[in-house]
Amino acid sequence: MSSSGAAAGRGDRTEQPPMRDALIAAAFRLFPERGYEQTTVDDIVALAGVGRRSFFRYFPTKEDVVFPDHERCLADMTAFLAASPADAEPVARVCDAARLVLRMYAEKPSFSVQRYRLTKQVPGLRAYELSVVWHYERAMARFLRERFAGHPDGTLRADVIAAAVVAAHNNALRSWLRSDGREDAEAALDHALGQVAEAFGAAAPARPPSGASGASPEDVVVVVSRRDAPLWRVVRELESVLGHD
Amino acid sequence: MSSSGAAAGRGDRTEQPPMRDALIAAAFRLFPERGYEQTTVDDIVALAGVGRRSFFRYFPTKEDVVFPDHERCLADMTAFLAASPADAEPVARVCDAARLVLRMYAEKPSFSVQRYRLTKQVPGLRAYELSVVWHYERAMARFLRERFAGHPDGTLRADVIAAAVVAAHNNALRSWLRSDGREDAEAALDHALGQVAEAFGAAAPARPPSGASGASPEDVVVVVSRRDAPLWRVVRELESVLGHD
Repeated sequence: MSSSGAAAGRGDRTEQPPMRDALIAAAFRLFPERGYEQTTVDDIVALAGVGRRSFFRYFPTKEDVVFPDHERCLADMTAFLAASPADAEPVARVCDAARLVLRMYAEKPSFSVQRYRLTKQVPGLRAYELSVVWHYERAMARFLRERFAGHPDGTLRADVIAAAVVAAHNNALRSWLRSDGREDAEAALDHALGQVAEAFGAAAPARPPSGASGASPEDVVVVVSRRDAPLWRVVRELESVLGHD
Repeated sequence: MSSSGAAAGRGDRTEQPPMRDALIAAAFRLFPERGYEQTTVDDIVALAGVGRRSFFRYFPTKEDVVFPDHERCLADMTAFLAASPADAEPVARVCDAARLVLRMYAEKPSFSVQRYRLTKQVPGLRAYELSVVWHYERAMARFLRERFAGHPDGTLRADVIAAAVVAAHNNALRSWLRSDGREDAEAALDHALGQVAEAFGAAAPARPPSGASGASPEDVVVVVSRRDAPLWRVVRELESVLGHD
């Protein structure tokens, strides 16, 4: 699957203010040295050379400085999904949305690896991360629910596919983080998403319910068959789906 | 899929002490009246007629009283999975584990519906619930990872299937809760899990890695093709996959 479409969501990225970056850098210098719990907001602002109120202007809590890019990334992803062409294949689109999220991690390998170690050690951060992941998953599920509206089991299918895409993403991300950011993250994700597409490619309707019931040439046809089925039977099935005589 | 196997995990259920039940009942009388945030532990123990230390003996935090059955249910589920026969189909087994969890909700409809309303209103409880769900998902994924060990992509497949099963469970649970516990929860779950089994039944290896690498007659072949592909090309592809000449 091509990931080229994912680049579209990145155009509206705004530059982050330098003070915000300085706070993040200070926090991530202190956390490994002193431990997350032992590092106070006062320690962070002292090292960054800014006032305490500046910290809270950017980060409502100390936890938020650990995940400084997620809010923007969630907004990017939501915008990317909202900008989907009407004829975009929904599952492929959600896979591209997952690629956007992975890219946020892959752009800053050492930062991401540091955070991964921190999150494993601090239960509060783990809970925060679960909530972040849940928001990504809900954004994907909302998009799929809209695309599957009117289909029988559209909501169920949307929820299950969103969960599967997120699990595939997290699996690829984790294996990249465990390699200390050395492996090819995007290749790992492509591979993982391939499994999801294989499982759900057939189940995902390719067009909104308002579309004509007739087949379009761009449609993808998926035929599932037992390996021991006779070839003639599979071909007959194919013919009926393709509309050939 | 039969859910009869799920009953096996329930044998070691221990009776809950009456004082614990009294605390839960008091909490759930007060939460709707006063609101969750406004209800203190002191209010709960006063209504239950027990001391403050009794509360914390059973519940480390006020949040824990909202989810009093999850710890036992997670233990039941883990035991159920650990007791799986060697020849049990892993995906079916994990689906039965999800049925165990649903039964915990379905056994107490009005309690479950009350908690659902509470959880929607209180972000802290929502975070708690995400963590609870994450533990169920990890227990399922661990079981599947073991069963898929040695298979290419076993870990990935385990993670994706566990996530899909949990999403199907949550979808069924939510629609039951929205019906105020009036719909048939188990039927909704059976239907939802049917979708997961349909997607992954083929992908989930039915036999341990020691099996022969050659194709088995039960294997499923998936062919994906553009609708406008000529039939002969699709048939040639099929032939090569099926090993026919």
